[in-house]
Amino acid sequence: MPLWNVHHPAGVYTEEEKQDFVERVTSIYESGGLPRFYVAVLFHEVGPETCYVGGEEAGDFVRITVAHLARHFEAPEDRARIRRKLNDAIEPFAAGKNMRWEFHVEETPPDLWMINGLVPPPPRSEAEKLWVKENRAIPY
Amino acid sequence: MPLWNVHHPAGVYTEEEKQDFVERVTSIYESGGLPRFYVAVLFHEVGPETCYVGGEEAGDFVRITVAHLARHFEAPEDRARIRRKLNDAIEPFAAGKNMRWEFHVEETPPDLWMINGLVPPPPRSEAEKLWVKENRAIPY
Amino acid sequence: MPLWNVHHPAGVYTEEEKQDFVERVTSIYESGGLPRFYVAVLFHEVGPETCYVGGEEAGDFVRITVAHLARHFEAPEDRARIRRKLNDAIEPFAAGKNMRWEFHVEETPPDLWMINGLVPPPPRSEAEKLWVKENRAIPY
Repeated sequence: MPLWNVHHPAGVYTEEEKQDFVERVTSIYESGGLPRFYVAVLFHEVGPETCYVGGEEAGDFVRITVAHLARHFEAPEDRARIRRKLNDAIEPFAAGKNMRWEFHVEETPPDLWMINGLVPPPPRSEAEKLWVKENRAIPY
Repeated sequence: MPLWNVHHPAGVYTEEEKQDFVERVTSIYESGGLPRFYVAVLFHEVGPETCYVGGEEAGDFVRITVAHLARHFEAPEDRARIRRKLNDAIEPFAAGKNMRWEFHVEETPPDLWMINGLVPPPPRSEAEKLWVKENRAIPY
Repeated sequence: MPLWNVHHPAGVYTEEEKQDFVERVTSIYESGGLPRFYVAVLFHEVGPETCYVGGEEAGDFVRITVAHLARHFEAPEDRARIRRKLNDAIEPFAAGKNMRWEFHVEETPPDLWMINGLVPPPPRSEAEKLWVKENRAIPY
């Protein structure tokens, strides 16, 4: 958790621009107390004739799906806050290239999730703090 | 919403065939009162040795995943109806090429979804009607 | 159901290694009473500068998402058991190549799912047993 899948037009982004985006995304979760290595971002280049919005081919569209596993927010104000944070990370990445953008989050069950054969430790546990500190999965 | 991810064997479809399919898909949601631009369709070509069904490589398989965000249906008859509509859009696309096909829908939380930095307006609100009419995201 | 999407570094796996992995995955569900053809596995090669873990490019990471449709487990011990089985199928595939790995399962609604225009039969029904035996979708 989280897993970001980023679909964007082929050839639009440099490695440095992707790196900057990834750092902003990773920081969101790091500042929320999660291990940095929980954050995985996959970029997918979209070629001609493979992306359609509103029935028309779209070469100016960044579509991002996010899977949240480790933390699910309940309170509406918390959900609005995380939504805003995600958009703040995405907006410069998309709008800076004159792209339209859209994202959504899916919340998947934390108990059907493993890393390197380990069940990730409970939120805010001592084991999770160790995973944060060591930035890797450690048997506990 | 909705996001369609369509995995199909490489080289099977022409641009026109994809366009026809996309138009059928888009019309489903348009006739349900949604803005056309809510409908995003991404095609993914599947090459040899990358798609397996029942343990065997499958070069005749179209696999579609659909994320529904803006509307979730509760009543079983409504769910059966939308399921049938989606299949009616897919069947000629797949069966016309002698492909097997499979799809499923995931329903993701509408409050963790943004377009161009905006929270999409509530279902059937005046703002949503304006988005339908203008076919773009407008601050409201 | 189930749908496995496997993201792995380009060029790491031979066809035979993928086939072995797919067979292990398929067997899990077959031994649980599901038709073999319910199990679809899609492999996605990840190139340089497209996969980041913890803010850093990762060329040693296998990320798998699994969608479960036909069966959802409720009891914590059943969920732990299936989690372990999935990991047992993945671990040799990833660790054998000195890869880190992560997977999660999403559970999507079984009533918004169709194969070849048919609603899959209820769990453990006579129709499902026929689908198992014939290993294909049959009108019922």
